[in-house]
Order: sequence, then structure tokens, then C-alpha cells
Amino acid sequence: MSSEEHGAVAPEQTATPSSSATQPIIAVDAMGGDHGPSVVVPGAIRSAREGGFKVILLGDEKRIRQELDKLGPCPEAEILHTSQVAAMGEKPSDVLRRKKDSSIQQAFAIVKEGRAHGVVSAGNSGATVACGMFILGRINGVERPALASIMQTEHAPMVLVDVGANVDCKPYHLFQFGIMADVLARDVLGIERPRVGLLSIGEEEGKGNLQVKEAFELFKMTAMNFVGNVEGRDIFTGDVDVVVCDGFVGNVALKLSEGLCTSLSRMLKRELMRSLPARLGASLVAGALKRFARLVDYAEYGGAPVLGLQGIAIVCHGASNEKAIKSACSMAATYVRKETNDHLMAELTANEELSRFGKAAMKL
Amino acid sequence: MSSEEHGAVAPEQTATPSSSATQPIIAVDAMGGDHGPSVVVPGAIRSAREGGFKVILLGDEKRIRQELDKLGPCPEAEILHTSQVAAMGEKPSDVLRRKKDSSIQQAFAIVKEGRAHGVVSAGNSGATVACGMFILGRINGVERPALASIMQTEHAPMVLVDVGANVDCKPYHLFQFGIMADVLARDVLGIERPRVGLLSIGEEEGKGNLQVKEAFELFKMTAMNFVGNVEGRDIFTGDVDVVVCDGFVGNVALKLSEGLCTSLSRMLKRELMRSLPARLGASLVAGALKRFARLVDYAEYGGAPVLGLQGIAIVCHGASNEKAIKSACSMAATYVRKETNDHLMAELTANEELSRFGKAAMKL
Repeated sequence: MSSEEHGAVAPEQTATPSSSATQPIIAVDAMGGDHGPSVVVPGAIRSAREGGFKVILLGDEKRIRQELDKLGPCPEAEILHTSQVAAMGEKPSDVLRRKKDSSIQQAFAIVKEGRAHGVVSAGNSGATVACGMFILGRINGVERPALASIMQTEHAPMVLVDVGANVDCKPYHLFQFGIMADVLARDVLGIERPRVGLLSIGEEEGKGNLQVKEAFELFKMTAMNFVGNVEGRDIFTGDVDVVVCDGFVGNVALKLSEGLCTSLSRMLKRELMRSLPARLGASLVAGALKRFARLVDYAEYGGAPVLGLQGIAIVCHGASNEKAIKSACSMAATYVRKETNDHLMAELTANEELSRFGKAAMKL
Repeated sequence: MSSEEHGAVAPEQTATPSSSATQPIIAVDAMGGDHGPSVVVPGAIRSAREGGFKVILLGDEKRIRQELDKLGPCPEAEILHTSQVAAMGEKPSDVLRRKKDSSIQQAFAIVKEGRAHGVVSAGNSGATVACGMFILGRINGVERPALASIMQTEHAPMVLVDVGANVDCKPYHLFQFGIMADVLARDVLGIERPRVGLLSIGEEEGKGNLQVKEAFELFKMTAMNFVGNVEGRDIFTGDVDVVVCDGFVGNVALKLSEGLCTSLSRMLKRELMRSLPARLGASLVAGALKRFARLVDYAEYGGAPVLGLQGIAIVCHGASNEKAIKSACSMAATYVRKETNDHLMAELTANEELSRFGKAAMKL
């Protein structure tokens, strides 16, 4: 199953026209990721062309222009030269202090100035979240912005949140993650009334750790379509649209899924190479295997949005290929067109009392 | 890859004679699991025959005898009639109080009396752990017995601990889980010097939540082969032999792996049925697919030992088939022959000071 069929990757093409007439302008960190401009520039340009929006490419002007030259006339792109690059292993605080003219800091700076609506980066993800927090700031009432990952399941994509921005969360943090991811699933995945579950170790109420048990109480009181606890095995069945958890658990879950898919693909390939009939058969099943492989490919779903910032930020995998960058830029544009951040704010306000209750009254 | 090649399933056949001359006697809860005696009895008998040990089958005598009659003369088996059964959804405390003559309680009772060495059950796993705790008691110094799961990886089996017996763990609990799983990997998987990792969200020291950061300090001070933090994606590569985590995280990881394997297998099958060439090819690759499917089959690795009890308990999946029960009984027998519990106690004693320091001095 391709996520394109479900609107996760390129919702630009199928989205109904939004009430906003704004043409999205996306600031793209051209220096980010393992492959830098050679992958980021074509990904961004293809996405902008198909989706009818603009991109500002930040980074080394010469290298960016080299890549642009291969793509024909690019009226949808603008280059903003920056002199520094945030390295992958660099501490977020160091990037913030010492890399004022890095592509990633400048990308957020132009969003802050109103020259762009959102940022896409495949660079240092810790630095991206930190720059988002410090340069754009958080939405009023959000204590901890969260990283949401859109994952493929057997039937349709779903949102897992938080996948690593926050560890040692309080129950009301989880509650806020759920509110924000619910809006994301509605706007970006087009699900009218997302089924929201709390990741736990048993389906019955009362199962889980202290954090989950208390968060359950808050979710129970909202108007959202809360389906209760879900287990690890429920993530991929397609029976739930949003799964909420602490960033430690979510990051383990995300990386484990990635690792398991990679290992299984490798093992399947190895088994198929073992005998002559299998090798012959493998050529006949090549198409099926290719479709199967797409499913276990993170590029299908692109980037992870940071929820709760006063602006838009999509964090991409360091190993992103062109397709992943393209998907992430499309997602950012959808986010702008659908006015997702306005919806986030409205939902957070509607649930403000509950959040405050969770913060004040809960033990954990 | 079959785990049999690696000695995880039927180590009985390949184990070098242990110093102990004891013939293992395993108490098997014949009423446990979704399929009850029809699966448990043949699984236990086949294991006992191959491994040269004895089993005591607990449960409804009539139903057990029915199953035994199909298997020819069974001098390796003894029946112990019990009048009650613990239901799958029943609360552990209710089972303990109201089901004194249940097959699971009586199984632990005969271990306590010295008539058997260990228990294997595919029944209510919460009740199994609770009966183990209350009837057998914990090894001196162990505050929280842990559930260890032996999982297949690309290259060899590894141990994940805790997979659900404990949530909201303290750092020194994680430390004790690691000590015990290290012994398990040595005795049951035959790994001379297991590589022990702490499950976290970044490889560098200092990454993770409070619990993991403090546990890291304790692991660093031991003589075991501690390799530092590992991530979700490292579990299946075969680069680490023991992965330690809180029972909440471990349970999510275990169920997510199971769910993902099931979903992927289903999707692969669906893709292979889509076109005529793929269907033709599928018949040629059937052998390869079968080997692949074995890998994602929990039955290959049988049961999850409860570490830290004064006795042996192996918890099996409720949906266990005959092969899973057979594997679990073999593992219990290996545990007896290798005197694993004695080794556990020795290691815990050797690390007693560190555990005590962790309990007294750490913030969490």
C-alpha cells in the first residue's frame, strides 16, 4: 500500500481548497541531512512545482545554485545564503549560541520575520526543535512541543506522538500531545474524527504506569474520540489514528519499527537468494516485493512535524532521500493551507481547563 | 534462520552435561493457554522425551488422560488432578485467594514442596507471576522479579528484560534485571560474555530519561560486559545479547514487534496474491517464505522466564502452540540442569553493594 493513496505524502494534490488564500512559502534547510543540497534541493523544488507553492532554500549559495541549475528554470525558489552549518552531532545549545548564521537558525528567523510560513530540515533534529522553541516560541499554554511521526499501517497512515522531543513527561503533557495530534490527523491525514488511543500495556482502564493511568483520566473527560488504552500490537493494524505516549517510549517504538522492517527485508532477501527456484520465483514476485518495500520505507511519509510551536517545523530523517524531502515540504504546505496551527490553538484553548487541572491536581 | 540452529529452542539436545546430576522435573499447567490440554500435553511430553526429563501435568485428570492416550506410553509424565482453573482475565489477587486448587497455584505449590523444579504455564500471566512471588518467594535481595523474553534477531537470539512484570521501575531495578538477564544469556543461550545494553533514545552516555541515566551509572561500575545505551533499532541487528528496560517500555516493544511482524506477513501475502506472475512466483519462493515466517513466529523461542524467583517459572504466550510449549519446557529443564538460579544468586550477591548504593543514593 502506498501512502500516496491515502493522502499522507502528497495531500497537496488531493486537498480541497482551503479557506485561506495564502500561498505557502516554506523555508528549506538545504544543508541538512546526510546528502545535503544534492537531495534537498530537487526534493523541495519538485514538491513546490507540484503543489504550487514557494520555497526559500537556505545554505551555501554556490552549492544550492549548482543543484538548481540541473532542474531548469525555478521561479518557485529563492536562495538565501548562509555561512554556517549545524553539524549532526552538535549540541542544540551550541548551535543556538555559536551558529547564528547557520541554515537552520536562519530558516526559523525568516519564519519569525514573516517571510516564510514554515521550516523543513533533515539536519540535526535536536537543534531543529531547539531553534523552533527559542526562535519561534511555543503556542500559548503548551509547555512541551512534541514530535509527531506519521507511520504506515496495514490500512492507512496514523500519527504516533511524541517520538522523542520529551522524556519524563507529566500526564497533562501527554494530554496536550493528544489534543495536538488529533488536529494533525484531521488536517493533514484528512480523518474526520480520529480515534485517539493512549499507548499502554493492557487495554483495560487502569493498566499501565502512573503517567498513563493519570493521563487516561484527562483524556476521558474530553470531547475527542478517545478509544482508551492501546497496545504495541495495535499500532500497525489501522484500528487507531493517533497513538499518544511519552517521547522515550515513542522514540523506542519508532526506531524499533524502523530496525525491524530493515532486518526483516534483509532476511527476506537473503532467503530468496538461497536456492535457484527461489531466485527464479523472486523475479516473478519482484513487483509485489517492491510494493511491500515501499511500505517499510520511511520516505513514503516524509517528515515529523513539531507540534506546539508558533510556526511550522517539519523534522526529516537524516538519511532522507529526495522523495522524503518532497513529502515533508508538501506536508508543510498543507499545514499552512489548512491553517492547522490556528486549529491547534483553538483545541488547546477548548481544553485549557482540563490541562490546568492535570497540572495542578495530579500526583505525578 | 531457525533459532534451533542457535540453541535457543531446544538447548537440551546440544547442552554439554552439567555438573548437576539432577533429572529435571517440570510442573506443567495443563489447563493454561487458549488451547488447554490438547496443545500443552503433547508439547510437554515431546519435550520431556527428547530432553530426558520428567513432567507433572496439573489440571483436570480426565482431559489430560484423554490427551496422553493419543501419545502412547508416557512414563515421563505424572498427572496431578486439580479442580479449579484460573481464567485468562481473572485478577491475580483473586486467583491467589479463591483458586487454591487451580492448576497454576498447585504447580507452584509442588515446586515449593520440592516435588518439582519449575513451572511452565501458558495461562493468565499476571497470575503466574503473582503465584511465583507469593508461593515461591523472591531471591534474597531481589525487589522485583522480571519477565525476560528471548527474541529472534537477524543473527542470533537475544534477551529483552523486563517485558511487562514491572512498571515505574527505579534505576537499581533495571540494574538487577541486567544482572539476572546476563546470567540467563550465559546459561540458556550459551553466550560466554553477553553484551549488555540499556535501551535508550540515543547511544551516547547521558541520553535518555532520568531512570536510564541513573541506571547507566550503576551498569558502568560492574564487571559485566556493559556496552552502554542501545536504541530501538539495535534490538534486531544481533549486535547486543541483553537489552534492559522498564517493563512498560519492554512490553510495548515486545507487542509492537509481534504486531509489526504479523502485519508485514499479512501484507506480503496480500501483495503476492495480487497478480498471476506473483502467484506463480509465490509457489517458487514458498520455501523461502516459510523460513522467513518461522523467524517471526514466537513459538520458535517459546516462553518468557521470570527472573528472581526462588524457583523456576516460564510464562508462555496465551496463543502458544505445541511447539511453543515444547520450547518452554526444554528451557525450564536447561534452567534446572545449568543451575541457573544458583548463578543468579551468586551474581546478585557479587553486585549487592552496587544495588544497595543505587537504592540509597539515587534521586529517582
